[in-house]
Amino acid sequence: MADLSPMDLYEKLTAQGEAVRSLKAQKSPKADVDAAVQLLLQMKLDYKRVMGQDYKAGCPPAEGEMAVDNGAAAEDGDDQVDPWNVSSSNAKGVDYDKLIVRFGSSKIDQELVDRIARVTGKTPHHFLRRGIFFSHRDMHQILDAFENKKSFYLYTGRGPSSEAMHVGHLIPFIFTKWLQDMFDVPLVIQMTDDEKYLWKDLTLEDCHRYTVENAKDIIACGFDVNKTFIFSDLDYMGASPAFYRNVVKVQKHVTFNQVKGIFGFTDSDCIGKISFPAIQAAPSFSSSFPQIFGDRTDVQCLIPCAIDQDPYFRMTRDVAPRIGYPKPALLHSTFFPALQGAQTKMSASDANSSIFLTDSPKQIKNKVNKHAFSGGKDTVEEHRKFGGNPDVDVSFMYLTFFMEDDDQLEKIRQDYSSGALLTGELKKCLIETLQPLIAAHQERRKLVTEDTVRQFMSPRKLPFN
Amino acid sequence: MADLSPMDLYEKLTAQGEAVRSLKAQKSPKADVDAAVQLLLQMKLDYKRVMGQDYKAGCPPAEGEMAVDNGAAAEDGDDQVDPWNVSSSNAKGVDYDKLIVRFGSSKIDQELVDRIARVTGKTPHHFLRRGIFFSHRDMHQILDAFENKKSFYLYTGRGPSSEAMHVGHLIPFIFTKWLQDMFDVPLVIQMTDDEKYLWKDLTLEDCHRYTVENAKDIIACGFDVNKTFIFSDLDYMGASPAFYRNVVKVQKHVTFNQVKGIFGFTDSDCIGKISFPAIQAAPSFSSSFPQIFGDRTDVQCLIPCAIDQDPYFRMTRDVAPRIGYPKPALLHSTFFPALQGAQTKMSASDANSSIFLTDSPKQIKNKVNKHAFSGGKDTVEEHRKFGGNPDVDVSFMYLTFFMEDDDQLEKIRQDYSSGALLTGELKKCLIETLQPLIAAHQERRKLVTEDTVRQFMSPRKLPFN
Repeated sequence: MADLSPMDLYEKLTAQGEAVRSLKAQKSPKADVDAAVQLLLQMKLDYKRVMGQDYKAGCPPAEGEMAVDNGAAAEDGDDQVDPWNVSSSNAKGVDYDKLIVRFGSSKIDQELVDRIARVTGKTPHHFLRRGIFFSHRDMHQILDAFENKKSFYLYTGRGPSSEAMHVGHLIPFIFTKWLQDMFDVPLVIQMTDDEKYLWKDLTLEDCHRYTVENAKDIIACGFDVNKTFIFSDLDYMGASPAFYRNVVKVQKHVTFNQVKGIFGFTDSDCIGKISFPAIQAAPSFSSSFPQIFGDRTDVQCLIPCAIDQDPYFRMTRDVAPRIGYPKPALLHSTFFPALQGAQTKMSASDANSSIFLTDSPKQIKNKVNKHAFSGGKDTVEEHRKFGGNPDVDVSFMYLTFFMEDDDQLEKIRQDYSSGALLTGELKKCLIETLQPLIAAHQERRKLVTEDTVRQFMSPRKLPFN
Repeated sequence: MADLSPMDLYEKLTAQGEAVRSLKAQKSPKADVDAAVQLLLQMKLDYKRVMGQDYKAGCPPAEGEMAVDNGAAAEDGDDQVDPWNVSSSNAKGVDYDKLIVRFGSSKIDQELVDRIARVTGKTPHHFLRRGIFFSHRDMHQILDAFENKKSFYLYTGRGPSSEAMHVGHLIPFIFTKWLQDMFDVPLVIQMTDDEKYLWKDLTLEDCHRYTVENAKDIIACGFDVNKTFIFSDLDYMGASPAFYRNVVKVQKHVTFNQVKGIFGFTDSDCIGKISFPAIQAAPSFSSSFPQIFGDRTDVQCLIPCAIDQDPYFRMTRDVAPRIGYPKPALLHSTFFPALQGAQTKMSASDANSSIFLTDSPKQIKNKVNKHAFSGGKDTVEEHRKFGGNPDVDVSFMYLTFFMEDDDQLEKIRQDYSSGALLTGELKKCLIETLQPLIAAHQERRKLVTEDTVRQFMSPRKLPFN
């Protein structure tokens, strides 16, 4: 029996338990019952030997992905990456190759980027070309589906912890918009206002208000209202029995031990935090949105998100087959660095840690000039002689996110490395890239009315093949 | 500071944290900030000394009731009483006086019964007269409210674990119907189909089907459709943003440590079980039912239930003031004994453990004659000589629940104790009490259509002062 997977063992044991109950119910001969009980006891011993814990009816074992290394269990010296903490001691930021190994995901290699180009017939987004989306799970399945005209949908989200969003918050949405344009599929966007209430010192009303304000910035990224459903957990949970049913299904199949291992929860955490992962998992299943997918429970989901959200979806992928649903596929992005450097994610509560979507051209200029960590040398003379280091220079990093022209970016990299381009000139280049981009966002956001928000946030039918 | 309550300490500390943040934000003089930080640190030390654990922002301390003794922490020899296990080694059943002390509730004494008679102008129900409802929390508050024409409402519930309900399941509903008639107030009845899905090897569809079937039996108790809302958790959670908001509020204010202490949960329990207590707590707050109570958050709730449900409401009463709601009042009943004896609660899965609501007159007769544990002597001669023991006789216990005439019941008790009444005669008396009662229930249930169920289960306005 040791060759069987934990889930096989579990299922055989459950079946044997049922066999014993049925023999007893039928008042079968004592010898038959005894033999069946004997086998059951032996199977329980085998199970405990293999699993290191007792068999428990109704509690199937965790499989592969849930058991992998994670932020909470990182070794000394490893970067810390979980949904609430991202930190690295390296000025270049997190070591993403190492993270792929630790999380057990797959690298987005040239072959995958080329296949995306081939399948969609379009140039891959510069986030893909430049390794900003660097890791994936099952993206080839999604491309197979696209080639075979099989349906799938997109799911991404945001935790609305304040009204203020910075440019880094837009990364998953810019990319998701591109995916929506490429694949022409429905998109659901979860606003986890319940999560923010549970984790932060905020009222429910605050969190819900931030949801609506943040939704305006998200809508301003250009999503197609006919293909996009944005929802507040606080509202949608109370508007969709199907969504709650999926939340409960996930909650039944994940133990406290498991969320402790994945998320680092402790006994002092509130029970809301402990059960929340099921709420972020549920939108990965098409049956959570009957208004979009009818009675289809088999439509696969593709989730573009920053890599720190992966723990939620490792858990989701582990649970999915046990509740009869397909595993979601994922595309993971790197983190957008703070102006002060790549060691940490930005903080929405520190206005100087990034460029905010409400910043004026002057604020952008001042912030970049004053706060953007420079990889340049201390004096012009030294810089000309030795060159700057673009790998730790935040202005250059920001340009890799926002400058679309590969050739121009490469030239900047070379000139900065050689010393031909000074820090002030590099910053000017970033300022001139960001100012029109932010201004255009602000223009688009102005056009987003309360009514537009209501449209996006109404549970409704979306065109879907 | 040691004279302050844990909650006072917590609140002062939180305020000081805010003061420090505000000083920093205003860029106040360094000396001011330092002094405030110094005080904050001292307060944290004091907090830890008093509470035995670190201060955590957003996690207020548990107060009084949550910390009392409970089933999970029962001492050796104590009866075990929690929502999933009730057992006693005594043939008379659980020691209820001891339970009142352990749970920290109050005895329903003659004074309270008399006051209920005085306030309502009616004879108190025989469940009250005979100590079947034996314990309470804050019932005098409810009577004060009634006298002062202040509003309150009733809340009770059922876990629909099968289609079959037995007579014991009716006890809280029979009593609640009497309370509704006495006080003329709205009533909400929660069907915890989500709980049964989480705890049992059942599908969501099964649990929901049992909800509807059980609702028919509940409706057959005679509730007023104009004053009664019956809801399935699986449906109502997805139909009421207000309900989910209260669930999340409770979930934020209860830690895993606390539910571990109250309910005996372990790290191997699924996260659904761990967070479920918040779902049973939420109906205790009027704001969970805006369709009934509008925007009123201050309508107190009275919960008639079996004493094994008290852990949920100790937790609820602890949380209530911290989220700005009144504590629910409670009326606790004893357990309805199995035919085999008072050591355990009955099992809905063992057809011979009780009288089911679907039993025919013949089945009732056979079950009582064959299975009802007798307190009589082994032979007629001995019985006539020494008399029977009504305290352990299940037929007599059932009569205390279902025979309305006090004088007749007392005569049976005396005759049985003296030996004048034989076990067979006592059983006959019970059979003749139950047969018409069950037949009448079956007649009333036949009149309950799917449409009647839909009416009771539709979220809607109820007349409410």
